[in-house]
Amino acid sequence: MSQAAKRVCVIGAGPSGMSVLYHFHQLKTQGKEIPEIVCFDKQSDWGGLWKYSWETGTDKYGEPVHGSMYRDLWSNIPKECLEYPDYTFDEHFGKPIPSFPPRDVLYDYLKGRWSKGDLRPWIRFNHVIRQVTYNDSTDDFSVVAKDLLEDRMLPTQRFDHVIVATGHYSVPNVPFFPGIDQFPGRILHSHDFRNASQFKNKKVLVIGSRFSAEDIALQCVKYGAVNVVCTWRTKPMCFPLPPQITEKPLPTKIEGRTVHLKDDTTIEVDDIILCTGYLLSFPFLADNLRLKSTNVLYPPGLYKGTIWTQGGNNKLLYMGMQDQLYTFTMFDAQAKWAVNYITGEISLPDKQTMEDDCKEWVARMKELKEFFDEVDFQSAFVADLAKDTNYGYDLDIVKLVHVLIEHKMTDVTTYRDQSYTSMFTGTKSPVHHTPFIKAFDDSMKCFLDIKE
Amino acid sequence: MSQAAKRVCVIGAGPSGMSVLYHFHQLKTQGKEIPEIVCFDKQSDWGGLWKYSWETGTDKYGEPVHGSMYRDLWSNIPKECLEYPDYTFDEHFGKPIPSFPPRDVLYDYLKGRWSKGDLRPWIRFNHVIRQVTYNDSTDDFSVVAKDLLEDRMLPTQRFDHVIVATGHYSVPNVPFFPGIDQFPGRILHSHDFRNASQFKNKKVLVIGSRFSAEDIALQCVKYGAVNVVCTWRTKPMCFPLPPQITEKPLPTKIEGRTVHLKDDTTIEVDDIILCTGYLLSFPFLADNLRLKSTNVLYPPGLYKGTIWTQGGNNKLLYMGMQDQLYTFTMFDAQAKWAVNYITGEISLPDKQTMEDDCKEWVARMKELKEFFDEVDFQSAFVADLAKDTNYGYDLDIVKLVHVLIEHKMTDVTTYRDQSYTSMFTGTKSPVHHTPFIKAFDDSMKCFLDIKE
Repeated sequence: MSQAAKRVCVIGAGPSGMSVLYHFHQLKTQGKEIPEIVCFDKQSDWGGLWKYSWETGTDKYGEPVHGSMYRDLWSNIPKECLEYPDYTFDEHFGKPIPSFPPRDVLYDYLKGRWSKGDLRPWIRFNHVIRQVTYNDSTDDFSVVAKDLLEDRMLPTQRFDHVIVATGHYSVPNVPFFPGIDQFPGRILHSHDFRNASQFKNKKVLVIGSRFSAEDIALQCVKYGAVNVVCTWRTKPMCFPLPPQITEKPLPTKIEGRTVHLKDDTTIEVDDIILCTGYLLSFPFLADNLRLKSTNVLYPPGLYKGTIWTQGGNNKLLYMGMQDQLYTFTMFDAQAKWAVNYITGEISLPDKQTMEDDCKEWVARMKELKEFFDEVDFQSAFVADLAKDTNYGYDLDIVKLVHVLIEHKMTDVTTYRDQSYTSMFTGTKSPVHHTPFIKAFDDSMKCFLDIKE
Repeated sequence: MSQAAKRVCVIGAGPSGMSVLYHFHQLKTQGKEIPEIVCFDKQSDWGGLWKYSWETGTDKYGEPVHGSMYRDLWSNIPKECLEYPDYTFDEHFGKPIPSFPPRDVLYDYLKGRWSKGDLRPWIRFNHVIRQVTYNDSTDDFSVVAKDLLEDRMLPTQRFDHVIVATGHYSVPNVPFFPGIDQFPGRILHSHDFRNASQFKNKKVLVIGSRFSAEDIALQCVKYGAVNVVCTWRTKPMCFPLPPQITEKPLPTKIEGRTVHLKDDTTIEVDDIILCTGYLLSFPFLADNLRLKSTNVLYPPGLYKGTIWTQGGNNKLLYMGMQDQLYTFTMFDAQAKWAVNYITGEISLPDKQTMEDDCKEWVARMKELKEFFDEVDFQSAFVADLAKDTNYGYDLDIVKLVHVLIEHKMTDVTTYRDQSYTSMFTGTKSPVHHTPFIKAFDDSMKCFLDIKE
């Protein structure tokens, strides 16, 4: 089949879906023939999680809200680890900016890259996918989308490839503790956390000990919470925390506002925030196409972490379904790999080789002990994708992540005040004019007002 | 087709779906042949909204939470208006109880009636319906359900009738006001309101002026909110409110915690509760089967408010999709009518007659002016269903509703302290031992501890 006769469906116009569109467009500008691309996104604009929404629960169309973004979010990784090789921060902002930008600044950077190509015409916004099935006889997919604006289902469309780029930080994993149903305070999942000032003067219990637990606890303290107790299942965080944040093992039961913990102590709390992660959820996919996994660095069943080898004849692809230490650049390397595969520049080995490769990664993942190991594992994963496509990924970026971890080990409240050097421009970032913990105006205008 | 050869799918095991099952079971105990019944419910037990859930957003399976129930809810209509003719409150509780029971007491009553027949084996709990389509050639429906416990789709099942009893107070209607996306306080829809103590010491803005606005405002004041401002779109509430609750027209814009209102005044608020109603939402139904309506007393396209005349050959039925003044008894009269229709005891007139009948009701609805008129309209609707089935509905119940409204006109904080007389047993209810506004223990044990 010629490339031009092919049809590719991309589900989701967030960073991973947009990277797919971007790399198809790159090929097109190089004069290569590419398939017809149709990207569906249920939101009204591109950005995925980076499109901040004040809404929680369901949106105005009754669809579950995609966003888990909070207004006060600042990057928790230096922008130098998120930098696209072919679109640097210096290029976008026209000047050096500090290493840990707030939400809106990062979103602006993303939009800058996406706006370089003519990608928008490929996207059907306000369209949610209701059903994807694979047709054995014709070796293609049937896709049913709903037009939310017109409140109607579109006729079934056929595609040769489907790329699932819907993200996996949108559908909360919700635990239960005896008595939580009688707790008189507020209970929310981090998915519904929108800003920390709502927790001013509150005693907050956070369930969880990973990135969102750490950052939401820090945000609450920054915005005036009395104290925060974070609770861990397997182990406490490995970073020193400010005195208002303490760590405890998980609750055993809740009685009124009193929370009983596994170490036989009790605490009194006003509100409970469940930073308990997310489910991989694809209600629109037929069972034989559906990835089932917890949030791990290498979900099983995906060759190169990307191709669904269990059904759909290797024509169904998943983007970014890994637990994420890297984000934008990982999606981008993966997207370029996916685009090269679909356009025939990469061909697959036999089924056994693919399964063996996948098993090897999964086995390696199971041996990981420390956080540093996890970083190295994901670096290797990205490098493995990058080498097949000559993606301009600088392997030394992993060193920046190690430096980041060292900074966090020193003080979790100050690591965002540090400066990093871009691997691509050599620019050393300026230090932000205000330390993170004292910076309450995180608008782009304020952030970019850099003292030279 | 013999009744025994027919298959009926009931979607939802709340009060309306359970009434359908109950009346099929009644026929069975009378020795009549009935169809095969399969009821699906996504929750783990029966009750619909009456099964209280502490969760908000999505549940542990990633499905949108059905419940909009709050823990402190007490009936806002005397139980004498909700009483099943064939299962009185006296029979269930073995003694007279006060007229305005809290949530758990009403749920207990419902479960008592449902437990009279052997209904549970008909229900597949933890099953969500993903797709319903009508097959022209075979004049039946294809239904796809997902087993949530096993995380798999079931093979397509065929049914002769589908009864949609999923309720319509589960998917929020979410309005937008300029600046609401920057509001630093908490914003929630009444769907996510779980208890009023979360609003102690808060200044609360309620958007809305109907039943949930009134009751949630009252609950907040009862549990210690500083004050509540309720805002109306078309008109203020017609009931006198306690001094802590005031009424204003809708916001025009929001700046920080300052809310600008249509009367050019401003207020400062901590939290915003959207009591802005719900969407009729049936994402699982094919477009030609899907009722599209706002929340009105007579949604168009439903003959007898029940039969979908626009597709599915009059074999698709909707339960309780009306705006609800009556609830349990309306669903029950409607369920008996539906069961009698499916078993052939009621036959339909020609299409034109049905459409004319429907249009007449819709036209009559549009003429309604006052709240009393609405009550009379829905009473007439229930009576119309009841007369076709000899349902033992006492038309004089409407008089109780009029008395209720008079009580609310006097004092919205005390109307629940009044006593009503059952139409079926003649029992005058005892007065509750504690006035509603001072009753903070609404457990069944406390409520039923009646001074004789």
